[in-house]
Amino acid sequence: MSKMNLLNWLKEGQVVIPTVLLREYKAMKLNEYELVLLLQMIAFIEKGNEFPTPAELSSSMTISNSECSDILRKLIQKGFIEIKDGFTSDGIRYEKYSIELLWEKCVEHFILQQKREEANAIQREEI
Amino acid sequence: MSKMNLLNWLKEGQVVIPTVLLREYKAMKLNEYELVLLLQMIAFIEKGNEFPTPAELSSSMTISNSECSDILRKLIQKGFIEIKDGFTSDGIRYEKYSIELLWEKCVEHFILQQKREEANAIQREEI
Amino acid sequence: MSKMNLLNWLKEGQVVIPTVLLREYKAMKLNEYELVLLLQMIAFIEKGNEFPTPAELSSSMTISNSECSDILRKLIQKGFIEIKDGFTSDGIRYEKYSIELLWEKCVEHFILQQKREEANAIQREEI
Amino acid sequence: MSKMNLLNWLKEGQVVIPTVLLREYKAMKLNEYELVLLLQMIAFIEKGNEFPTPAELSSSMTISNSECSDILRKLIQKGFIEIKDGFTSDGIRYEKYSIELLWEKCVEHFILQQKREEANAIQREEI
Repeated sequence: MSKMNLLNWLKEGQVVIPTVLLREYKAMKLNEYELVLLLQMIAFIEKGNEFPTPAELSSSMTISNSECSDILRKLIQKGFIEIKDGFTSDGIRYEKYSIELLWEKCVEHFILQQKREEANAIQREEI
Repeated sequence: MSKMNLLNWLKEGQVVIPTVLLREYKAMKLNEYELVLLLQMIAFIEKGNEFPTPAELSSSMTISNSECSDILRKLIQKGFIEIKDGFTSDGIRYEKYSIELLWEKCVEHFILQQKREEANAIQREEI
Repeated sequence: MSKMNLLNWLKEGQVVIPTVLLREYKAMKLNEYELVLLLQMIAFIEKGNEFPTPAELSSSMTISNSECSDILRKLIQKGFIEIKDGFTSDGIRYEKYSIELLWEKCVEHFILQQKREEANAIQREEI
Repeated sequence: MSKMNLLNWLKEGQVVIPTVLLREYKAMKLNEYELVLLLQMIAFIEKGNEFPTPAELSSSMTISNSECSDILRKLIQKGFIEIKDGFTSDGIRYEKYSIELLWEKCVEHFILQQKREEANAIQREEI
């Protein structure tokens, strides 16, 4: 029983979040609901479900199904996620979420932040 | 420059969240603000700051300093985090947050969930 | 360029290893070559290649293709990995590695170790 | 019991390895023993022991105490790790390992590899 619990815990897996995302999401114009929704999406994708429904995504959140749909629409509009087409080996078309744009924005904010810190360091030296 | 950016990104590190926490936080009576605050706390602790201030914790969040203090108080009352005493090698007392209780609750919910699924599986077999 | 480097680094991903595996692999009768081969396999599986060839697995290691095949055979014999069948949506059979047995052994050793430590603690109290 | 096992497993933590290190260590002139020793060192550092002894590092490995000392010496000579001085709050000097140079070399190899792939891609287009 104990062994099964531990194995099942391991099977659930984990989500690895760059600390930069936790520090920059506000600057990236994301709020806490949007951030957690994105974390839920990452967890689903990592377990092989690349196109979780609003019902699946919101089932572990304090928001409703339709609020979840609204957030998804906004995340697409604001360019954090995309829906991409794929084709199975037997030619059936399917849709999946891509979060590449999220990482792109995150990296952009990180590089910007780095430049700002460098500029500050130079300014301090001059004074 | 490119190399420095990458090294600085690596230095920022990452937070590893068990998927179970993402799935069970609502059942654990946590909301999205509380969850993200706990993730911020984990990130601070992992970087060696074991007693981040409300100002530090809220600086990357969409909530104010005083809202952050309120949430911290609630998290302590509801038994998710504790403040613990420590002593430095030269005998100076310091305080730090402990999130052991969070993992305890998370594991309890996971084991409960496992039992429920087993019971359901048995019931389905009987029908 | 800098942004692309960082994004490409992120795309490469990471492998999350329970510290217990690093501490118990010798007790589990694995050596360093076998451990690293298993880590390579985990990395390939996480990137979607569930049946990496000996050539792929050994390409980043100091061992030859055929030494790699030998180690794979031994890992299967000793019950650390299995080859499992799968079927694509259009009914084509494929093979993939499963490392569930590795985690099972790892968890068994961990629980055993825990019991041993408890027994030692009780013995110390009695003295 | 089951709950304690799971909590203890969580307490042991995990080591997050960039996939790039697994792919590039041979190119970085590291062998499997050196790689695993570095992983052991990372695990010790993350648990707060910043200057593990050869006995501690080798205890989970198939190598002897003195072989471990030899590898440590080589890793320092080849510039993968450094011993750094620190001072506690009450002025006592202590030593700790730094693995920053490891990440520096890893990032250098990654950027080199990226350039090589770009060059290949351009060459292919020209043909």
